[in-house]
Amino acid sequence: MIIVADNMQVTNPDVAEAISTRNPEPLEKLVKACIEAGADAIDINPGPLKKNAAEIMTFLVQTVRGVTPNTILLDTTSAPAIEAGLAASEGRAVINGFSLEPEKLVHILPLAKRFDADIIGYVLYPDSRVPTDETEFLEITLELLAEAEKAGIDPGKLIVDPVVAPLIWENGVAHNRSLLSFLGRLPELAGYPLRSAAGLSNLTTGRGASAEKKRLAERTFLPMMAAAGLSMVLMQVFRKEVVDTARACDVLTSPRTIFSWASLTVL
Amino acid sequence: MIIVADNMQVTNPDVAEAISTRNPEPLEKLVKACIEAGADAIDINPGPLKKNAAEIMTFLVQTVRGVTPNTILLDTTSAPAIEAGLAASEGRAVINGFSLEPEKLVHILPLAKRFDADIIGYVLYPDSRVPTDETEFLEITLELLAEAEKAGIDPGKLIVDPVVAPLIWENGVAHNRSLLSFLGRLPELAGYPLRSAAGLSNLTTGRGASAEKKRLAERTFLPMMAAAGLSMVLMQVFRKEVVDTARACDVLTSPRTIFSWASLTVL
Repeated sequence: MIIVADNMQVTNPDVAEAISTRNPEPLEKLVKACIEAGADAIDINPGPLKKNAAEIMTFLVQTVRGVTPNTILLDTTSAPAIEAGLAASEGRAVINGFSLEPEKLVHILPLAKRFDADIIGYVLYPDSRVPTDETEFLEITLELLAEAEKAGIDPGKLIVDPVVAPLIWENGVAHNRSLLSFLGRLPELAGYPLRSAAGLSNLTTGRGASAEKKRLAERTFLPMMAAAGLSMVLMQVFRKEVVDTARACDVLTSPRTIFSWASLTVL
Repeated sequence: MIIVADNMQVTNPDVAEAISTRNPEPLEKLVKACIEAGADAIDINPGPLKKNAAEIMTFLVQTVRGVTPNTILLDTTSAPAIEAGLAASEGRAVINGFSLEPEKLVHILPLAKRFDADIIGYVLYPDSRVPTDETEFLEITLELLAEAEKAGIDPGKLIVDPVVAPLIWENGVAHNRSLLSFLGRLPELAGYPLRSAAGLSNLTTGRGASAEKKRLAERTFLPMMAAAGLSMVLMQVFRKEVVDTARACDVLTSPRTIFSWASLTVL
C-alpha cells in the first residue's frame, strides 16, 4: 500500500502562510518530515485556488521536488493549477482528481491524456452525493471507467477513490461497510487490477472525540481496507501508530512475503 | 465479535500451580481480571488432562462459574473432561473443539448432541495438517458440517475455527490470506450465517519479536478477520490495545449502529 502524506494542505495555517508568502522553507521542512515519517508520496492540497492558481502550484511542486523525487498528488479542483503542476513535476505526478461532475470531466480529465498521467476518480454522483450501497459504488465506477475511455485514457491510468465517509455522518458506518465490499469486488468488476485510493483522515473528521479514539478508529479501519485490496492511502503521516499499521498491512497481505519479524517495523 | 479470554491456560505457570493444588483463589482473580479487561467469555485450557480429567475440569468450571455467568469454552482434547465441564457449567458452555480426527469425531462430537451445546470445529485435515488454500478450507468445512449432521447436531450449533497460522511458519502469511478469503465466503458456502472463531495468539507465537511488534501484528490482522465476518476471537485480554481494536471492529462493522464516539471505548 502506497502511503500518501496529506499533511500539506491549506487548512494547515503554517502551510497557508507559506503559500501566501511563497516561502519554501517551512514546506521543505514539512515534506522532509513526511518522508522520514514513512510517506511514499506527497499530496499537495492548496485549496480551490481562485487566484494565481498556476503560479502557486508551480511553486509548490518545485518546492516538493527540491526535497524528494517521490510521487506528487495534485489535489485541487483548479484545472490550470493541475496543468501547471503536471508541467512542473518532471513526471511522477497524479491528478487528484476528477469525478462525474461535468466541470471536471471537461477540464480535468483530459489533462490525464495530455500528460499521460495517473488520475484519481472519485466514486461520487455528478452532484457530489456519495453512493449508499455496493451496487451504486459499482455503477458509478463503471461510469468513471467509461468517461476515462471516452477521453482516450488508458484504463491502467485510473485510480478509483470510493471516498471514506466520516463516522459521524448519519450513514457513515453503513457507507464504509459498502465501501469495503466494493473494494473487494473491484478487480472482478474491472477485469484487471484497477487501483484504488482512500483518504483515511475523512473517517475521523469533526469534533467530539479524543485523538486516541480517532487513531483507534483509523488503525482499525485501515486493515479492513487493506485486506479488501486498497492500493493507496492518503493520511496524516505524523500519526505513527497508523503508519505502523499501514506497513503491517503490507506484510500481512503480501502474496509473496517470506515473513520475518524484521519486515514489521515499529517506526 | 465475542471476545474470549484465552488467558486461563495450563502453559501459564500460575494456572498450572492453581490446578495442581486445586486452589481456586488465583483462578478467581484471573477470571475477574479477564472480565474487567473486556472478556465476554472464558476459555478453560487445562491441557490434555491424562489424570483426574473430569474432576479437574469440574473444579475449573465451578471456579469460573463462581465469578461469572459468562460463556465458558471447554478447551481440551479430553472427552471425559469436556463431559464433566458441560455437566458443571449450568448451560452456556462451548466445546472447544473437534476436528476430522477420528478420535474426536467418535468421542467429542457426540457430546454436543447430548448436551445441546455449541461446538467449535477446527478446519484441519484428520491428521491435523492445515489447509493451504481457500478451496481446501471450504472442502474441510463441508466435511465438518457433514460430520455434525451425521451426529444429529443442529448446524446452528457449529462454530468453525480456520486456525490462524503463526506468521513465522513458512507459509503463515499465505495461509492467513486464504483464511480471510475463506471467512468472507463462509455464509455463502453454508447458506446460513455459520459462526466462526479464531485464536489470535497463534499469529504471533514463538520468539524473535518484541511485544510491541506482536501487538502491532495482532491489532492489524484482527480487523481483517472482523471485516471478513469473524464472530468470536480467542485472545490474551490483558493486551489492552488489541481489546480496544476488537471493540472498534464491532463499531465499524455493525450493520445497525448509529455511530457515536461514545461507542468507541479506549479502555
